[in-house]
Amino acid sequence: MWPDNEPSLLDRESLDALNERFRESDRAAGIELTPAFRPFTQRNDIFTRAFWDDTVRSAKTDAFFASYRSQFDARKGDGFSQRDFALRNASWSVSSAFSERCAEDGRREGFQAPLDVDVAVSDTRVELADPQAESVEIKRIATLFGADLVSIAEVDLRWHYASRVDTRDMSPADNALPEGVTHVIVMGHAMDADLVETYPSALAGASTGLEYSREAAIVTQLVSYLRGLGFEAVGSMNDTALVIPYALKAGLGEYGRNQMVLTPEFGPRVRFSKVFTNLPLQADTPRSLGIRAYCDTCDVCARACPPKALPDGPPTDVPVNVSTLRGVKKWSANAEKCFGYWASLKTDCAICMRVCPFNRGQTLADRLWFALATGRFRRLARWWADRRGVAKRLKPVDWWARLRAGRRG
Amino acid sequence: MWPDNEPSLLDRESLDALNERFRESDRAAGIELTPAFRPFTQRNDIFTRAFWDDTVRSAKTDAFFASYRSQFDARKGDGFSQRDFALRNASWSVSSAFSERCAEDGRREGFQAPLDVDVAVSDTRVELADPQAESVEIKRIATLFGADLVSIAEVDLRWHYASRVDTRDMSPADNALPEGVTHVIVMGHAMDADLVETYPSALAGASTGLEYSREAAIVTQLVSYLRGLGFEAVGSMNDTALVIPYALKAGLGEYGRNQMVLTPEFGPRVRFSKVFTNLPLQADTPRSLGIRAYCDTCDVCARACPPKALPDGPPTDVPVNVSTLRGVKKWSANAEKCFGYWASLKTDCAICMRVCPFNRGQTLADRLWFALATGRFRRLARWWADRRGVAKRLKPVDWWARLRAGRRG
Repeated sequence: MWPDNEPSLLDRESLDALNERFRESDRAAGIELTPAFRPFTQRNDIFTRAFWDDTVRSAKTDAFFASYRSQFDARKGDGFSQRDFALRNASWSVSSAFSERCAEDGRREGFQAPLDVDVAVSDTRVELADPQAESVEIKRIATLFGADLVSIAEVDLRWHYASRVDTRDMSPADNALPEGVTHVIVMGHAMDADLVETYPSALAGASTGLEYSREAAIVTQLVSYLRGLGFEAVGSMNDTALVIPYALKAGLGEYGRNQMVLTPEFGPRVRFSKVFTNLPLQADTPRSLGIRAYCDTCDVCARACPPKALPDGPPTDVPVNVSTLRGVKKWSANAEKCFGYWASLKTDCAICMRVCPFNRGQTLADRLWFALATGRFRRLARWWADRRGVAKRLKPVDWWARLRAGRRG
Repeated sequence: MWPDNEPSLLDRESLDALNERFRESDRAAGIELTPAFRPFTQRNDIFTRAFWDDTVRSAKTDAFFASYRSQFDARKGDGFSQRDFALRNASWSVSSAFSERCAEDGRREGFQAPLDVDVAVSDTRVELADPQAESVEIKRIATLFGADLVSIAEVDLRWHYASRVDTRDMSPADNALPEGVTHVIVMGHAMDADLVETYPSALAGASTGLEYSREAAIVTQLVSYLRGLGFEAVGSMNDTALVIPYALKAGLGEYGRNQMVLTPEFGPRVRFSKVFTNLPLQADTPRSLGIRAYCDTCDVCARACPPKALPDGPPTDVPVNVSTLRGVKKWSANAEKCFGYWASLKTDCAICMRVCPFNRGQTLADRLWFALATGRFRRLARWWADRRGVAKRLKPVDWWARLRAGRRG
């Protein structure tokens, strides 16, 4: 079905050059590539496979996607009522408005194509301060637009999809950035803690939808700003490139067993977006926080995963299936099992985010635990976390009761 | 050019019935209608007139609108540099994405037509609690989506545009709501205090753009939620109806000399949006806060207005020009002078918001002043406000310096 000779942004030589150029920073970010590494092709993403790969697609996966388009079937079961689905879908509605507007052209913006912003790059360029000062300023502007975390990395085509897909027929489509784009501004968007506590439920999906909707807005504003300054800018949510290596390179956190970037500020309870630009910026550096070393000793997420989609052993470069990024020694989920569970629920699942010991607040106890968990008293932190027990699910009915009583946010 | 027999949502008899039905609540809200009252026609709105009325339209007004579409001419003068315009336009970009998407059909959403949300009303309706409980819940949901203030009023066609305009040729277009819509959820969106302090400047316009962009997102989400529950919902920004009488009826604040609703929480530093629905709700009631009585004795805004567009005397029902709402005894601005000044600046002006003594924070002194200003020690509050002096403009360069230093928000 697919050409042997796939489109790609990188030939062997360029890939080798990038491996060489970023050797040190890969290591600092905990990214370990093997000679088998090759850039990911978006059509192998589990969500994209659900549209063309009969081993993934089923009546259930079709119903999963349809449920976001208001054909939800409320059912018995706390957290899956009509109100829960209505809130989840409403939360997504801004993101959906952006992703649907060019669907007829085969570009599902923010997912299978960059966000198109109807603002031309200004003919004149502003006078620039030095890259360091511009970097500080652009981060504050992103914060003004609502980003919770902002950091900068150099553009690195190894993390870019070799090709994206045209969503009309799921055929490969060109995924090149404009010429001369050098940096990526990586933004983190914190998710609502109370809603995340209700995973798994349709209600909990509102925490995801709210952030995608915020992302779409913030990315649109940041792209518009950069173009107004006279520079190229390409806005991106899940499209264009893998965000995890970029978030690691930008120093926003460390990669965890639950397949998420664990940040000091929000643990795993954060989503990421990115804006590519040719504004001269200064890249941040990866940070060694000690978070990932805790994951070496902890498998709370893997044990809590109903379909057993998360790995319980050490990192490995053995691919689980075609949705695994090849040639990276890391914890890799079984995306087929994971998404199969989502489809059976008719909503996204992030139990692995809820139960992660790094999913905490900012109380004194939370901060003390973080200090222990990321330092040489890691075993004491393990003991404390075990004693506290795995974070329980907040019952969706209790979330609604809290809402009505005004006891949230 | 316009038919004598204009389209209208209200005949004489229905208008009389509404005047009768809402007599008490009009009075409580400080709304004083005279027999000359008739619903406003959107084509007489100053922004709409700028497209068809040669007494308003000019090269300057065309350049004003064009400046929001990235053809801004940065110029010398603090607050009007390319960065200032870029930030202002970026702030607007989400609102613009919504308002431009159906422009080809003559519907500039959020301004000359309701926001179109691509979600059907659910076939099944959720089981409802009583209207009071549903009202509490829907307010909390609006807050979850990001609204800063939420209140409810009954639908009252007196405040609805007799007709809206088709933006292709500025001809009258039907402005009817779906059958059976009974209530309006009025939301307030606070503006950034520091940015407002920089009025007048292109930079300051970012405070307006950021809120319109937030409004568009929040309204979209609330409409989607109500439809998911199985009820009609129409999302509205500046389109469809005047929001000021609705905000007064919903008890969000009192009408001030500067043509704004002055709220206890944010003074005049707030914008409003609205969602019309047939979900059975309980309307809030107007509140007598004592704010408007302060305006009787204060003309700081009128004195600070460069084009002298604000009234310095008592409320009157004498229309200033065709853009005045007829038959309401109130403070009415000269919208032609006001917008003429905007056009000359190439950006919106809200000096009257910045200098209003009710534009304050929530420090102890601020709250003490508010208590005095709205009680029987009003004269003491006047004296204090005079002594403190009119709030100075924050220089845009200083705003940028604060931003770079991380001293804001």
